[in-house]
Amino acid sequence: MLVPRQALRSIQEIASPIRVAIFGSTGSIGKSALEVIASQRGRFEVVALVANRSADLLHAQALQFRPRFVGLGEAEALKKFRALPSTGSQIVGETEVHSLAALPEVDVVVAAIVGAAGLRCVETALCSGKKVALANKESLVTAGPLVTQAMQGSGAQLLPVDSEHSAIFQALQGAGEQEVSELTLTASGGPFWRLASSELDQVTPAQAVKHPRWSMGAKISVDSASMMNKALELIEAHWLFGLKPDRIKVLLHPQSIVHSLVNFIDGSQLAQLSVPDMKGPIAFAMAYPHGRLPGVMQGLDLAKIGNLEFFELDSKRFPAVDLARQCLAVGPAASAVFNMANEAAVGAFLAGRMKFTAITPFVERMLSEIQFEFPASFEGLHAVLAQVTKQIESRL
Amino acid sequence: MLVPRQALRSIQEIASPIRVAIFGSTGSIGKSALEVIASQRGRFEVVALVANRSADLLHAQALQFRPRFVGLGEAEALKKFRALPSTGSQIVGETEVHSLAALPEVDVVVAAIVGAAGLRCVETALCSGKKVALANKESLVTAGPLVTQAMQGSGAQLLPVDSEHSAIFQALQGAGEQEVSELTLTASGGPFWRLASSELDQVTPAQAVKHPRWSMGAKISVDSASMMNKALELIEAHWLFGLKPDRIKVLLHPQSIVHSLVNFIDGSQLAQLSVPDMKGPIAFAMAYPHGRLPGVMQGLDLAKIGNLEFFELDSKRFPAVDLARQCLAVGPAASAVFNMANEAAVGAFLAGRMKFTAITPFVERMLSEIQFEFPASFEGLHAVLAQVTKQIESRL
Repeated sequence: MLVPRQALRSIQEIASPIRVAIFGSTGSIGKSALEVIASQRGRFEVVALVANRSADLLHAQALQFRPRFVGLGEAEALKKFRALPSTGSQIVGETEVHSLAALPEVDVVVAAIVGAAGLRCVETALCSGKKVALANKESLVTAGPLVTQAMQGSGAQLLPVDSEHSAIFQALQGAGEQEVSELTLTASGGPFWRLASSELDQVTPAQAVKHPRWSMGAKISVDSASMMNKALELIEAHWLFGLKPDRIKVLLHPQSIVHSLVNFIDGSQLAQLSVPDMKGPIAFAMAYPHGRLPGVMQGLDLAKIGNLEFFELDSKRFPAVDLARQCLAVGPAASAVFNMANEAAVGAFLAGRMKFTAITPFVERMLSEIQFEFPASFEGLHAVLAQVTKQIESRL
Repeated sequence: MLVPRQALRSIQEIASPIRVAIFGSTGSIGKSALEVIASQRGRFEVVALVANRSADLLHAQALQFRPRFVGLGEAEALKKFRALPSTGSQIVGETEVHSLAALPEVDVVVAAIVGAAGLRCVETALCSGKKVALANKESLVTAGPLVTQAMQGSGAQLLPVDSEHSAIFQALQGAGEQEVSELTLTASGGPFWRLASSELDQVTPAQAVKHPRWSMGAKISVDSASMMNKALELIEAHWLFGLKPDRIKVLLHPQSIVHSLVNFIDGSQLAQLSVPDMKGPIAFAMAYPHGRLPGVMQGLDLAKIGNLEFFELDSKRFPAVDLARQCLAVGPAASAVFNMANEAAVGAFLAGRMKFTAITPFVERMLSEIQFEFPASFEGLHAVLAQVTKQIESRL
């Protein structure tokens, strides 16, 4: 298991604020992390905020939270930010941005940059022995063995922020590893899970980004609709919790109230439930190993919800999850291709250049056409991934 | 909290078998406990089996499990048992029976005698510093303060066997006390929860003992139908987990798959789920602090179940739970009267001498008519309870 196994300590025991750097602070997860921090006076301190290109929002966040550092990935955005009134923060740009994850005055790095682009800050944070609240599942999907290696001896901790993996992490507190028989990742099913194959064929980008339960970015909404999100999560769960792919199940649960379950050897299951609100998982990860923080989410009234439904996933209409299991059987290079091919395909779909139902078959084709030997270092991986991306783009 | 707070140890670490005494071995819980023991070769050893009057079944159990001691509560049954071929066990009768709970060679006492009659063995076991797997909720309802007192300094541990309390105990593993905001006891609702008040009026004993989900004894089936079972469980949960009555909620859940939930301060909930099978809670309690045992229950397939429903409890038709909260506000003597009055009323209902809808009003009337100062010792309590029972019987 990559996730830590410690007894939880009381939140009352936090002597000085937990110092946080947020990568992707202007995205959905980043904004939720700042909401948690704002609502928990004195418990957190924002040391660094990093965005890609949303200069205006980052500027507003910097004025509110007064971080010592702000970072911007894009050169244009950096220029724009510099033209705005000073926030008092030191400004860091482009290639240096990920170095903020290694700052000695940072305790927790929230890694919330979407896609393989988020890998560099995760890598830097882990090598610097930080706690990493990981919302970027692509780090584990593309670089599982390297992440594992980077953590060894560095003192780093990986804390899941995905609601499913956080649910499992929460349900595992106090349990022994040998007591776990299976993990069950729940899937809302996205907007299309009831559609027939012929209807799926006609799905538009506008329909795909409208998730019925979670308000998320475009990429992850499409992944959710295609079950690619669950496929990536299965690979992520494999790395985080150390279970073989056939012991990680997927269960459709349209209400998104049960965020995942742990199945134990005695036939019992523990489930984590809440309203769909990322503030819960984010707070649990940021505060760890201090326990739960008060009032992070609205309470859950099950009588009001009334009904929780569960369905089997139809792997004929949604073959992505099975494909992920196959990738894990082949090896880490396959998982990396899986992720990069999906990123490219989603881009093509959102641009109107690929049908929704072509996404998974395209990924499958890339898996058979592109193989490489998995590199022994992050540097090696970045080089290979750049090359793989080119190969994939040329096949779109 | 009366329940222990220890880190779970692996079941592999059990060096020598856990030595068990079962009080009520011929009842529903006792039989399930023996099923668990039979299925877990080498992990348990049966030292003593105690029944009230089922001499034949106790004899068969003694032949199978070869306990050093057998006990029988009723004189007639004792005579009958003695007339059967020797099982090699030493036979103990009537008033001495509860002394088996103090045997030095016993690690765990399974307290599965129904009703206030089960109190003596619990008392003996706790004063002797045993682990007590508690299926007898009446012990805590009638004697909460004395049970708490008996545990202090004795090294005894109280481990819940009721499926609801076991669910909460399981969900609390690894959690800090200050993280808990509420407990939610689920209730199947029994056979009648959809009936109108006028229909409830006509309910017969035969209908009341047919529980839709659990196969249980007559008394507890009637309690389940009247919600008295949930009322008693609320009082039990108050003692076990140390929460105020207004922080213990009841939620109707007809499928009996979610056995209860813990609500945390962050808005998150943890639920324990399984098929309805008492072997799960019994095994968890008997093995504690060693973790879960393999294959105790059939696994749970949520996709097959499909649907979990939750409803608010209508406290107008089923006022028992509110009455229990009032009892806790008044004090421990009220809880004792509550239990004794219910036992008497259920007896009268099963004998056809009381209407189903008269049970709770009768209990309420007894609460207003019978008060006493809660005694400082178990001896004192037994004397008072005998007197209270007479008073109640005379008012039936």
